[in-house]
Amino acid sequence: MTNTRDIQITEVALRDGSHAVAHQYTVEQVLKVAKALNDANVPYIEVSHGDGLAGSSLQYGLSRTNEMELIEAAVSVADKSKVAVLLLPGIGTLHDLKEAANLGAKMARIATHVTEADVAPQHIAYAKELGMETVGFLMMNHMAPVDKLVEQAKLMESYGADTVYVVDSAGYLLPNQVRERIHALKQSVGVNIGFHGHNNLSLAMANTLVAIEEGATYIDGSVRCLGAGAGNTQTEVLVAVLERMGVKTGVDLYKMMDLAEDIIAPLLPVPQEITKDSLTLGYAGVYSSFALHAKRAAEKFGVDSRDILVELGKRKVVGGQEDMIVEVAAEIAKSKIVLS
Amino acid sequence: MTNTRDIQITEVALRDGSHAVAHQYTVEQVLKVAKALNDANVPYIEVSHGDGLAGSSLQYGLSRTNEMELIEAAVSVADKSKVAVLLLPGIGTLHDLKEAANLGAKMARIATHVTEADVAPQHIAYAKELGMETVGFLMMNHMAPVDKLVEQAKLMESYGADTVYVVDSAGYLLPNQVRERIHALKQSVGVNIGFHGHNNLSLAMANTLVAIEEGATYIDGSVRCLGAGAGNTQTEVLVAVLERMGVKTGVDLYKMMDLAEDIIAPLLPVPQEITKDSLTLGYAGVYSSFALHAKRAAEKFGVDSRDILVELGKRKVVGGQEDMIVEVAAEIAKSKIVLS
Repeated sequence: MTNTRDIQITEVALRDGSHAVAHQYTVEQVLKVAKALNDANVPYIEVSHGDGLAGSSLQYGLSRTNEMELIEAAVSVADKSKVAVLLLPGIGTLHDLKEAANLGAKMARIATHVTEADVAPQHIAYAKELGMETVGFLMMNHMAPVDKLVEQAKLMESYGADTVYVVDSAGYLLPNQVRERIHALKQSVGVNIGFHGHNNLSLAMANTLVAIEEGATYIDGSVRCLGAGAGNTQTEVLVAVLERMGVKTGVDLYKMMDLAEDIIAPLLPVPQEITKDSLTLGYAGVYSSFALHAKRAAEKFGVDSRDILVELGKRKVVGGQEDMIVEVAAEIAKSKIVLS
Repeated sequence: MTNTRDIQITEVALRDGSHAVAHQYTVEQVLKVAKALNDANVPYIEVSHGDGLAGSSLQYGLSRTNEMELIEAAVSVADKSKVAVLLLPGIGTLHDLKEAANLGAKMARIATHVTEADVAPQHIAYAKELGMETVGFLMMNHMAPVDKLVEQAKLMESYGADTVYVVDSAGYLLPNQVRERIHALKQSVGVNIGFHGHNNLSLAMANTLVAIEEGATYIDGSVRCLGAGAGNTQTEVLVAVLERMGVKTGVDLYKMMDLAEDIIAPLLPVPQEITKDSLTLGYAGVYSSFALHAKRAAEKFGVDSRDILVELGKRKVVGGQEDMIVEVAAEIAKSKIVLS
């Protein structure tokens, strides 16, 4: 059973889930969670700041515990599972990668905006040199048309990535859009294909199943939905669904359910629901960091912040273009006056 | 917009959601919620005890407020939306139906186990006599094979049901199973087809979209997932997803989001997550009322209550056969001794 997995699950609660606990993980918590994941035979456990190695900062949120200590803790209890780390070039460095590898991390997931794979080659090459498995993790995937995604995935493959992920960071993609993307990648790259979903539109499970149907074999989940926004595909539920479908994950369902209920649920400051904010992000397809700026601009101009976010989504505004938020708010206010 | 709906949404938070608040709704709460649903232009608002008219009892849970007062309250603020009631023959009576109709309820949903449509003809006929729209609501749908479902749906149609629903009471169905069911009904009945999902496997939205793809036009949702188990298809999220897909619901998205956040969320005693218990029900495909019995039997025989529930699901045990629970527990305990 252990060695015949149709699907390789990466549990992201200790990385993406770090957002949901405001990066306050302690060594004790990570020991407990990683031990349970290892016991449940989860193949990969990702451990890093929510924004990847070296994400701890005023801008992205300060970690309570140095992530290297957390990685070390996870490695110390994981004799079957492999520890993975996330790295966004520009935030994390080759030095961070080396430190993680020295501590025993075995997989490096190099994450870039979907159109910016070209910042990844050095990091992928270095991770391989360090003997790590490598992933090209293409974030905000919906912001690129399919042909652009294919081009970027091919770049990741050419840099040596063992796996290329479609990452639906905003929880925006609809099942047919995921189908089209995974299908296109399956036709054009030879490496493994992965999918990372968010549940802002209550579609994380639907999208994950479609991705698997189209040939994705690396799938991210977060136990009890412990991830950014409305969380990710709920791991223990995914294991149950795949078991019902006869798809082998090699993961122990009951142990995952117990972990979710007994260890993770009590950790959560608030349960992971689809709230007004997370739904808005999924509906608009924008960065979560825009939400607060949009609320401020909305108040200033007397418009609905959701209208601002939807318009930013339509214009495919990216991080660094925050000045557009005020501009859009002003335009909406103006058009309202004309209409009324 | 109002009159061109591709999909007719029935909001069930004031009926199925009654389970999630232990049937403690007050007139004031129902006034608030129904008013907001009416303002958001939701076509149908279901109001009843969680187990349908006259469900208030020691067995099913006592209502804090007489449901007729709640129906009256909802009708008083709904000048666009129609109020629907649920009735399980054997629990509710023709008398209850008449009382609800006299108070202004316009739709009667007559609910039976998927294989027992034949208890519904009187109630459907009487509802029609009272001038109500009628629905045949086939619960625990997964417990019948597709041909049996088709036979039962045809019975509902022959009794005069305007719409026949596939009701995934246990949140057990997988998307391909929903597809097969709705497809078969579309081939064999002439009336409207409806779908009512539960989110125990995180598939309520996926199943709902598949149902719509196959021709279902009546869809149930519960705002903020306020329903039994892990709740239903989350209404405000469904509205957002369908809007993204160009499917017209006629429902105001922002008003639904505000209702979910400002009125419903504060009502919830605990947020609606997929917990160990609700996941187990969806995975096993059994009645929620079995859960407590299974836990007791599990303790007595030193086995895992999940194994009992899964076995009950396989044997398609129905309500009234609770003695099977102890029997199954004993068998599992015995087989464990043999194996070890």
